[in-house]
Amino acid sequence: MRLAVLAHGKFPDDAKTAVGLLRYGDHDVAAVLDRDLADGRSDAAAGARVSDYLPDVQDAPVVAGIDDVPEIDALVIGIAPIGGGFDESWRDDVRGALSRGCDVWSGLHYFLSEDEEFARLADEHGCELWDVRRPPADLTVAEGVARDLDATIVTTVGTDCSVGKMTATLELLEAARDAGLNAGFVPTGQTGIMIEGWGIPIDRTISDFTAGAVERMLVERAAEYDYLLVEGQGSIVHPAYSAVTCGILHGSMPDHLVLCHEAGREVVHGYEAFDLLEPGAAAALYESLAEPVHPAEVVGGAVNTAGIADDGAAREALADFGDAIDAPATDPVRFDADDLVEAIR
Amino acid sequence: MRLAVLAHGKFPDDAKTAVGLLRYGDHDVAAVLDRDLADGRSDAAAGARVSDYLPDVQDAPVVAGIDDVPEIDALVIGIAPIGGGFDESWRDDVRGALSRGCDVWSGLHYFLSEDEEFARLADEHGCELWDVRRPPADLTVAEGVARDLDATIVTTVGTDCSVGKMTATLELLEAARDAGLNAGFVPTGQTGIMIEGWGIPIDRTISDFTAGAVERMLVERAAEYDYLLVEGQGSIVHPAYSAVTCGILHGSMPDHLVLCHEAGREVVHGYEAFDLLEPGAAAALYESLAEPVHPAEVVGGAVNTAGIADDGAAREALADFGDAIDAPATDPVRFDADDLVEAIR
Repeated sequence: MRLAVLAHGKFPDDAKTAVGLLRYGDHDVAAVLDRDLADGRSDAAAGARVSDYLPDVQDAPVVAGIDDVPEIDALVIGIAPIGGGFDESWRDDVRGALSRGCDVWSGLHYFLSEDEEFARLADEHGCELWDVRRPPADLTVAEGVARDLDATIVTTVGTDCSVGKMTATLELLEAARDAGLNAGFVPTGQTGIMIEGWGIPIDRTISDFTAGAVERMLVERAAEYDYLLVEGQGSIVHPAYSAVTCGILHGSMPDHLVLCHEAGREVVHGYEAFDLLEPGAAAALYESLAEPVHPAEVVGGAVNTAGIADDGAAREALADFGDAIDAPATDPVRFDADDLVEAIR
Repeated sequence: MRLAVLAHGKFPDDAKTAVGLLRYGDHDVAAVLDRDLADGRSDAAAGARVSDYLPDVQDAPVVAGIDDVPEIDALVIGIAPIGGGFDESWRDDVRGALSRGCDVWSGLHYFLSEDEEFARLADEHGCELWDVRRPPADLTVAEGVARDLDATIVTTVGTDCSVGKMTATLELLEAARDAGLNAGFVPTGQTGIMIEGWGIPIDRTISDFTAGAVERMLVERAAEYDYLLVEGQGSIVHPAYSAVTCGILHGSMPDHLVLCHEAGREVVHGYEAFDLLEPGAAAALYESLAEPVHPAEVVGGAVNTAGIADDGAAREALADFGDAIDAPATDPVRFDADDLVEAIR
């Protein structure tokens, strides 16, 4: 599939989905829509490019709107404003894409398929509106069978939300495949689902069905893969999101855990009155909580060290983290994920 | 309000909502509908009564259908079949109630307000269809403020689901009020919500909003009460429902925990391949999980000893449980909840 990714005013720093698709997706990205970046260029002929901002992902032109986009199969809403609403300034782009016969993918809380104009245009032009954040209607409670599956299940957990669990999972996936392991990805959030083209948005399921939704994905994929890498969410001591974390932990019944962290983070992101647990205490708590359902150990750590300029200092931070959790730790983006592959095999 | 409670074929043993309303509700119950019990009586003139089956709750006649029910304000669906569907054999009763101008309360997954006939009848006769299991549409993520509220918050937690957390909470409420405490109830499930006439069905919220929904209830009630008693759900190591439990724990940020258990239970109800934690280990795990968000200790145990015939043996089981959790334990139904009141004040 050829995609265009809408990220007006947010690319690249606040465009997690756009950057995820550029970095980890199998799809060709034909253009990124960011009218601020496109208009801000004095040399319009040369044009802004993704590589001006992110050197290590697939390159694409940055354009002002859908009229500047070459032939594509789908337009993706690649940003998620707080609250998840639809910004009316994007309507022309979505309208233009549908009128050209392109599908539109969205991870917004606002469902495009319930927008009267978009539904009508999609119908007229034979396009699909994929609201990634809408869970299947037929979810149910877990049966408690994930621990009986043949695949080795690895779940990423975190000291906090927004520490890089999706990134760590996808880096581990790539490294595992490079090492010859037959590994599959189990996405639980909107960006992961768009990258994989499949999955259930676990934070949007009915709370009684949280574990059941994770279990359903694992059951569906277990025959196909020897290793299933489950994207975790939130943290088990997060004041708002721990329910989601707990449902993923017990629904996935992992054999191994990988603990994710951002170096230097000491308080909960967005809830600064709450301290994070020390890494060792966090690892122990995840293990205690997993154990009665299916025993799992933290076999490795994945630490985002982007905030540490010096490679040597980053390696020191990783060594400290590894000591604290009594397992190897790496920054899979800055360095590599080989130690994590060894730890799960 | 005067209620009639529908419990066809299930009264009293499988009619948790009906029995809850009879035992703990402030409403007068004018009749219980159970056609099997009503028809099974040889002496139709005398008629079956609730007191034939449950001596310790408010009494009412047991009748075969809505036509035998005296004047009421609302008909309550007092049973919840597995799956939560609507049994078509109840349609005449609901139709009859609405035609008489009565409201209908339901805790089914099947929403009566989305049933075309019921919606039309309710509209024609000016009645309300209260689908207790439908959460408010405007829920959102927790702000993390429950720990800052003035009220003392007590949350019931369990070694398993279906061990009597609602019952323990309501018995503690009554005992606390008898002792002069200004205590309020925070229901999280359908039966508790019907008893209280207010509340949010936490197991039906979007998983991201689980803690937020609990927090909203506490914020709403904190000005009114010195003590808020939160009805827990499930168990933190339940293979299917732990997400709900975790959301309630962190959303309520309790000052004290009361650990509920059924004497003799050793495996997870309905998931018999999973062992329960020992009571002491369960208490420690709840405390470890609460601590990073807001420290809380298990200050008492509430054990359902109905399966133990002898009072002396029941007291021994309670003493053992108390030793294991290092706090006083009681069966608040069989004996009293005075020790629990002492523990939270």
